[in-house]
Amino acid sequence: MSGGANGSLGWLAVVGLGPGDAALITPEVSRALAEASDVVGYFPYVARVPERPGLNRHASDNRVELERAAQALEMAAEGRRVVVVSSGDPGVFAMASAVFEAWEAGPPSWRALDIRVLPGITAMLAAAARAGAPLGHDFCTINLSDNLKPWALIEKRLRLAAEGDFAMAFYNPRSKSRPDALGQVFDILRESCGDARPVLFARAVSTADEALRIVPLTEARGEMADMRTMVIVGSSRSRLIEGGARPVLYTPRWAP
Amino acid sequence: MSGGANGSLGWLAVVGLGPGDAALITPEVSRALAEASDVVGYFPYVARVPERPGLNRHASDNRVELERAAQALEMAAEGRRVVVVSSGDPGVFAMASAVFEAWEAGPPSWRALDIRVLPGITAMLAAAARAGAPLGHDFCTINLSDNLKPWALIEKRLRLAAEGDFAMAFYNPRSKSRPDALGQVFDILRESCGDARPVLFARAVSTADEALRIVPLTEARGEMADMRTMVIVGSSRSRLIEGGARPVLYTPRWAP
Repeated sequence: MSGGANGSLGWLAVVGLGPGDAALITPEVSRALAEASDVVGYFPYVARVPERPGLNRHASDNRVELERAAQALEMAAEGRRVVVVSSGDPGVFAMASAVFEAWEAGPPSWRALDIRVLPGITAMLAAAARAGAPLGHDFCTINLSDNLKPWALIEKRLRLAAEGDFAMAFYNPRSKSRPDALGQVFDILRESCGDARPVLFARAVSTADEALRIVPLTEARGEMADMRTMVIVGSSRSRLIEGGARPVLYTPRWAP
Repeated sequence: MSGGANGSLGWLAVVGLGPGDAALITPEVSRALAEASDVVGYFPYVARVPERPGLNRHASDNRVELERAAQALEMAAEGRRVVVVSSGDPGVFAMASAVFEAWEAGPPSWRALDIRVLPGITAMLAAAARAGAPLGHDFCTINLSDNLKPWALIEKRLRLAAEGDFAMAFYNPRSKSRPDALGQVFDILRESCGDARPVLFARAVSTADEALRIVPLTEARGEMADMRTMVIVGSSRSRLIEGGARPVLYTPRWAP
């Protein structure tokens, strides 16, 4: 715990706002937002927190995660009640790791800060639920952005995940700096999997822009995703059942 | 949509109650429970749903997932408003896949049923949040139970996940039928990883029985988990920072 200049105890909560719909925000996160003096985050996520008297909003651009984290830690050390907002879950390719990176590199006075991570509904689980249950058996979760890791490592992990017949959930499938990356991912999987696994493109799940599309791997193209799309590739055992109210994609619990 | 005998429209919602604390249940799930005529599930999960007039509770034992799913589908087809409850998220080693397996094998009249999956906070994300952010980079999620798949497949996936330097989240780490399995998992990882990765044992997160323990892989033992424990193994890049309010385990967002 850290006493602020005015003697009050500051804290930092790194929270997940879920995929978009307010009905997917946990009461725990809503309570932290109600108690906060400051909310910090990427501007479209800060915009999801309603304004109220006494709440200071600090919105910043993408790709400044460490600066944003340090700003939040500094305010908490000054005795403020700070919430860092992420979309989805804060611990899955979001702000929690950035906060701990900045905290570890920061001054010793930050060590005793009260830092909590409050989980949220991450995009892959919201997308999976909408389509059925494609992640109902073992799966891998991979960030396809090569901003923070070499492309060779992504490729290696894709091949290993295919060899293990894992289902796969891909975050950040498209980036402006590497527009062809997702197409290359599908090429690698077509080589490695050797079959027609189903691919789910789930865009903006739980928002007004929600759109789902399921195609066989043979037909999957990079252009089918944008920056708001979650991509899930089934295992060899995943089943696509059509003819009901909507197509259902699920992976059985068992494997031979 | 399916009309019941009395002309009303039945539906089935497969919902996640999160890890235990009611503050981790989404408003979407709470609303479905408030509208339900019937709640169906494994008895400790049904017990988490408060009784109220007009709500029929159907609790069953473990390992009867398909029968339970068929019962729920049948009631929905009769026009009832049925909620199937899972702990955590229904799509991650829980009831959603079982419901779709029973649905696919069931009568054609079930095809048009209104079935929704409502996501929840799954155990690995609750456990990760409590410890810091161990799943902040690519990771694999593996069910260690060999009830529904051969042990050789589990072993293969563990070796591939280790080769890819994924963090790993293990569900169902201990079972009565195979008490030594988790010890074997750690032996396999010690062979494959060749370093001292941190291992998190997170028991009953968000309940009164919550207990966290972090040890290096070299010291990890099967007896450190029970059936209420989530096990998370860090990647080679995961960091354990001690000396603060509590130990923090996190995986940086980047890799060289």
